[in-house]
Amino acid sequence: MLILVNLKTYPCDPVAVAEAVRDVDEETDARVAVAPQAAHIERVAATGVETWAQHVDPIDYGSNTGHTLAESVAEAGAVGTLINHSEQRLKLADIDGSVRAAERAGLETIVCANNPAQIGASAALGPDAVAVEPPELIGTGTPVSQADPDVVEDAVDAASRVDDDVSVLCGAGISTGDDVVSAGDLGAEGVLLASGVAKADDPKAALEDLVDPL
Amino acid sequence: MLILVNLKTYPCDPVAVAEAVRDVDEETDARVAVAPQAAHIERVAATGVETWAQHVDPIDYGSNTGHTLAESVAEAGAVGTLINHSEQRLKLADIDGSVRAAERAGLETIVCANNPAQIGASAALGPDAVAVEPPELIGTGTPVSQADPDVVEDAVDAASRVDDDVSVLCGAGISTGDDVVSAGDLGAEGVLLASGVAKADDPKAALEDLVDPL
Amino acid sequence: MLILVNLKTYPCDPVAVAEAVRDVDEETDARVAVAPQAAHIERVAATGVETWAQHVDPIDYGSNTGHTLAESVAEAGAVGTLINHSEQRLKLADIDGSVRAAERAGLETIVCANNPAQIGASAALGPDAVAVEPPELIGTGTPVSQADPDVVEDAVDAASRVDDDVSVLCGAGISTGDDVVSAGDLGAEGVLLASGVAKADDPKAALEDLVDPL
Amino acid sequence: MLILVNLKTYPCDPVAVAEAVRDVDEETDARVAVAPQAAHIERVAATGVETWAQHVDPIDYGSNTGHTLAESVAEAGAVGTLINHSEQRLKLADIDGSVRAAERAGLETIVCANNPAQIGASAALGPDAVAVEPPELIGTGTPVSQADPDVVEDAVDAASRVDDDVSVLCGAGISTGDDVVSAGDLGAEGVLLASGVAKADDPKAALEDLVDPL
Repeated sequence: MLILVNLKTYPCDPVAVAEAVRDVDEETDARVAVAPQAAHIERVAATGVETWAQHVDPIDYGSNTGHTLAESVAEAGAVGTLINHSEQRLKLADIDGSVRAAERAGLETIVCANNPAQIGASAALGPDAVAVEPPELIGTGTPVSQADPDVVEDAVDAASRVDDDVSVLCGAGISTGDDVVSAGDLGAEGVLLASGVAKADDPKAALEDLVDPL
Repeated sequence: MLILVNLKTYPCDPVAVAEAVRDVDEETDARVAVAPQAAHIERVAATGVETWAQHVDPIDYGSNTGHTLAESVAEAGAVGTLINHSEQRLKLADIDGSVRAAERAGLETIVCANNPAQIGASAALGPDAVAVEPPELIGTGTPVSQADPDVVEDAVDAASRVDDDVSVLCGAGISTGDDVVSAGDLGAEGVLLASGVAKADDPKAALEDLVDPL
Repeated sequence: MLILVNLKTYPCDPVAVAEAVRDVDEETDARVAVAPQAAHIERVAATGVETWAQHVDPIDYGSNTGHTLAESVAEAGAVGTLINHSEQRLKLADIDGSVRAAERAGLETIVCANNPAQIGASAALGPDAVAVEPPELIGTGTPVSQADPDVVEDAVDAASRVDDDVSVLCGAGISTGDDVVSAGDLGAEGVLLASGVAKADDPKAALEDLVDPL
Repeated sequence: MLILVNLKTYPCDPVAVAEAVRDVDEETDARVAVAPQAAHIERVAATGVETWAQHVDPIDYGSNTGHTLAESVAEAGAVGTLINHSEQRLKLADIDGSVRAAERAGLETIVCANNPAQIGASAALGPDAVAVEPPELIGTGTPVSQADPDVVEDAVDAASRVDDDVSVLCGAGISTGDDVVSAGDLGAEGVLLASGVAKADDPKAALEDLVDPL
């Protein structure tokens, strides 16, 4: 089970959360990782935690002022990247381009999408994983595995019909260890978390609660 | 075989081209249709030609100033719409939304994409058809079926792996009847045309040449 | 005083509203006009009403599938166009391009913006008019001239500092004739309306109420 | 004279270029600074060089996965940011939002634009500076001050008519010290450079040549 903590642009201390993620990753069988902002990747990766980028652009070396180059986040220490997060939606051609750019830089890829149809579409682009996050549940505290379990199962079906090698994660509203277990029972091989850990008073305790039932 | 003539924003007389398309459609077994600008749909459809929109937005009735509502183009006389043309690339979530909007309004859908991977992704969204147009061939006069026949076959394979009910068209560089035949031989069920007809001195003659070998 | 009724993508009968607008325009000293969807411009303009487009793209004749060409909406009967409406925000370079395209096609231009700083910026691009619509008031029924009269005065100041020839309109929340009068008192030379007329049971009566105190 | 070296996503060693920029800044009266990618800001700033971001998003702390928060680049060591570079064009409302975000984080701001009209518009948003870069000259090696000196003078006029406190820089094609001097003679208070320094075999020597005639 991959548990990826997305720090978004929250006002948290990225290094403190990273250290909590690293420590819990060492204590548990789950794979726990953190996705800081691009400007924080280097110092987060220096903690030894598994570090992900939140986004890479569909570009190569060249004249791309203000863009995020896959090679640069990889060199700063990232080992994977989110693509097409609901807060950074991309054109279809650019999701394809970003997956290719990430592969070129040796980054693992998770493409996010809203619903089973878009999950199937994302799987057809050949990323390592896809993550289904129904937009109406993001930030609600109601996990998709409880509010709408069919979405997770339908996403798993949609991805496997297109490409059996693409893992499915789920996000949106996950805040307890039971939510993580439920997601796994529905076929998800990982979860995306954000505020539940990043904004917790004690991120390490919050993560330990999440991985405890695994 | 569907032959769809895209008028883009060319300086042609849309009604004159529409009449040529209508006449050739009546003379031949092929299905020949025309896609004018939104502001021209009503007068083009009034000629009796099969009329398509060039784009619809992923919206419903409401507060969407400046957008193209599927119901409005349908009511003006369109029976189908292109979506995600290379000159109007959309976010993945918006291609999904535009296909849903078109279905709601009773419009047939063709989703355009650059390469077989994106064709598979587009097919996963459940349109009636997908159209592969390698960007490097658009406007070259070299047909994709000749420059890169594998792209057409790979696109047909990618779509059928995802959803057997989705037809595959091809575009980019088609200018002769032989190109249309070649596209059909590679598995395409239609072609997208543009300047070869829309900018021809005699659009009817240009179309007649195209459908002649069918 | 210019009173422009924006039909957005509302489920109204555009011709019926257009006829109401035309009739009230003839009965009053105010200049009353209507902005339908692109696909409706031709039939709306055929009523004899002053017709505006809701948007034009920063393009010329050519390969621009799915875009709105200024010449095409002009030829269909539009005499002016909104640009950068809050529901269709554009890049700065594209607002400039759209104003140039509209001028080329002989269309009058109104560039919309959120606040006095952006109104000054819009005025610097040389449109005929700018329209200030604070986003937090759109659709509230509380007119900007009442909720935040300083915004209107500051917008008038910002525009006149940059270019004295650019008129200022205001929108957002206007629903009564008193609101129109207040807008004029604050320096606005026109107002943008939408649902108050387009969704009224009797659009003509709604408009007559609006122009009555002028 | 501000000389800002934009590293774009070039395959250069950002720290090596940063050290060259820092050393030349110490040797000369000109103010010389460098703009690396977001993921490189921290290590570039650690060299002691004046460091700029290439872009910040119009956001605040919160749920903005994949975006660039002004506070984060400031905390990593940036003292200013480019906004609306020709390779990262923004909506007018977002240029306004990005200037406000940068101010909030204490970053100096340079808004880029294509032509004098857009320079006037950008100046109306109240940044510290604007930079005119005619797109047709970018990467040509022909400096704007030579190819089209009127553009620089017209940009200076446009900005000063709107707000006298906004400095004007110019970019596009500057590669020699004479180009920098010419830009200054036309009223520019700084220049944007990119490949001429970032891709030079000896960035320090290239910069020394540039500042030599100042």
